[in-house]
Amino acid sequence: MIDNQRPLDALGKSINTNVLVKLKDGQTVKGRLKAYDLHLNVALENAKFDGEEKEYPLIVVRGDNVLFISL
Amino acid sequence: MIDNQRPLDALGKSINTNVLVKLKDGQTVKGRLKAYDLHLNVALENAKFDGEEKEYPLIVVRGDNVLFISL
Amino acid sequence: MIDNQRPLDALGKSINTNVLVKLKDGQTVKGRLKAYDLHLNVALENAKFDGEEKEYPLIVVRGDNVLFISL
Amino acid sequence: MIDNQRPLDALGKSINTNVLVKLKDGQTVKGRLKAYDLHLNVALENAKFDGEEKEYPLIVVRGDNVLFISL
Amino acid sequence: MIDNQRPLDALGKSINTNVLVKLKDGQTVKGRLKAYDLHLNVALENAKFDGEEKEYPLIVVRGDNVLFISL
Amino acid sequence: MIDNQRPLDALGKSINTNVLVKLKDGQTVKGRLKAYDLHLNVALENAKFDGEEKEYPLIVVRGDNVLFISL
Amino acid sequence: MIDNQRPLDALGKSINTNVLVKLKDGQTVKGRLKAYDLHLNVALENAKFDGEEKEYPLIVVRGDNVLFISL
Repeated sequence: MIDNQRPLDALGKSINTNVLVKLKDGQTVKGRLKAYDLHLNVALENAKFDGEEKEYPLIVVRGDNVLFISL
Repeated sequence: MIDNQRPLDALGKSINTNVLVKLKDGQTVKGRLKAYDLHLNVALENAKFDGEEKEYPLIVVRGDNVLFISL
Repeated sequence: MIDNQRPLDALGKSINTNVLVKLKDGQTVKGRLKAYDLHLNVALENAKFDGEEKEYPLIVVRGDNVLFISL
Repeated sequence: MIDNQRPLDALGKSINTNVLVKLKDGQTVKGRLKAYDLHLNVALENAKFDGEEKEYPLIVVRGDNVLFISL
Repeated sequence: MIDNQRPLDALGKSINTNVLVKLKDGQTVKGRLKAYDLHLNVALENAKFDGEEKEYPLIVVRGDNVLFISL
Repeated sequence: MIDNQRPLDALGKSINTNVLVKLKDGQTVKGRLKAYDLHLNVALENAKFDGEEKEYPLIVVRGDNVLFISL
Repeated sequence: MIDNQRPLDALGKSINTNVLVKLKDGQTVKGRLKAYDLHLNVALENAKFDGEEKEYPLIVVRGDNVLFISL
């Protein structure tokens, strides 16, 4: 990563890798990053919320819920 | 789904299929996705909220209430 | 309703019909839909809030209060 | 009011009439509508809040506080 | 004030007069209106908050905190 | 300050002077104003929060946290 | 830093240095600033939240969570 880069560019390099998304409400969801946009809307495959058994094949998280994304 | 795709494109492939919409207030609503836009406003047919008996023939959910949509 | 339609188009077909508007604060208001816009601002005739006797001849609800509209 | 009208057009017909403005915080204010804009900012003459004695000669209410306006 | 006026125009006539600004958090601040803009950002001279002794020579209030302004 | 001035212009005259920034969460921070923009993002030198010993050499406060700025 | 500078310009000079990001929810995260944008979205390397052992190699914090950034 070089200077003057935009912070969301880091997400582009993480497409198809596993990421952790921390939500504003305290929840954590992990999944494979499939797509993102400038609002930080993210599409995650095989998404799993901490403390839940269920795995979602594909979810789209609305960006305004995101606290941070760990790559 | 390929790289560089926008996250909302995933919704386009799910038109006329059943989706689960998780709202910020904790509610879950399931229904058949009929339409969506860039704000994540969604039109759902035969929508049913978890824990309620009532089924709504057609609802339009305002996008800013959405936490995530499971496809 | 066909694919690729925008979710708010559904409202256009419901002009002059009775709709239910669920607000973010939990209130429900029913009335005849007279007009709407892209923010989901809606004008309702003969509007009545659940649990209240009063009927309002015409109200304009600011869109950002809306959770969903049932058509 | 005819179809395809925008919901805020209803306000234009109520200029110089008494309206009731319900705020998101639960307060109700009544007054004579002098002006409005697309954000639902409204100027009210002889405005009076429910439960208060005071009458304000002229107030400008910021639109994002508005739940609905009854015409 | 005439019809079709914008609600914020009322503020222009109150420049250099004493106004009352009610904030969303319940606080009231009074002062002489020196300037305003379309967001309802306002500059107030000799500003005094209800219940406080301190007088501020000049403050700029961010518009999104404003509930209403009494002219 | 003259009529028709914009409220944020007042900040331009206070560059390099000590200001008090009141935040929406109730905190107060004092420092030397180095820069600001239309969102009320502000850069403060030698910033000190009320009730804290620590002094920050340079902070950038995001404008949407600001209640008011005292010049 | 000179007059008329924009407050976010200060961040440009801090690229690749350690910064402290205070969040609106009270949390503090420290890391090496790699990138930022006008929304105050920031990319941080070796990010560590106060009171947590875990260190994140690279996170992208959504700007609307930021209270201030200490440089």
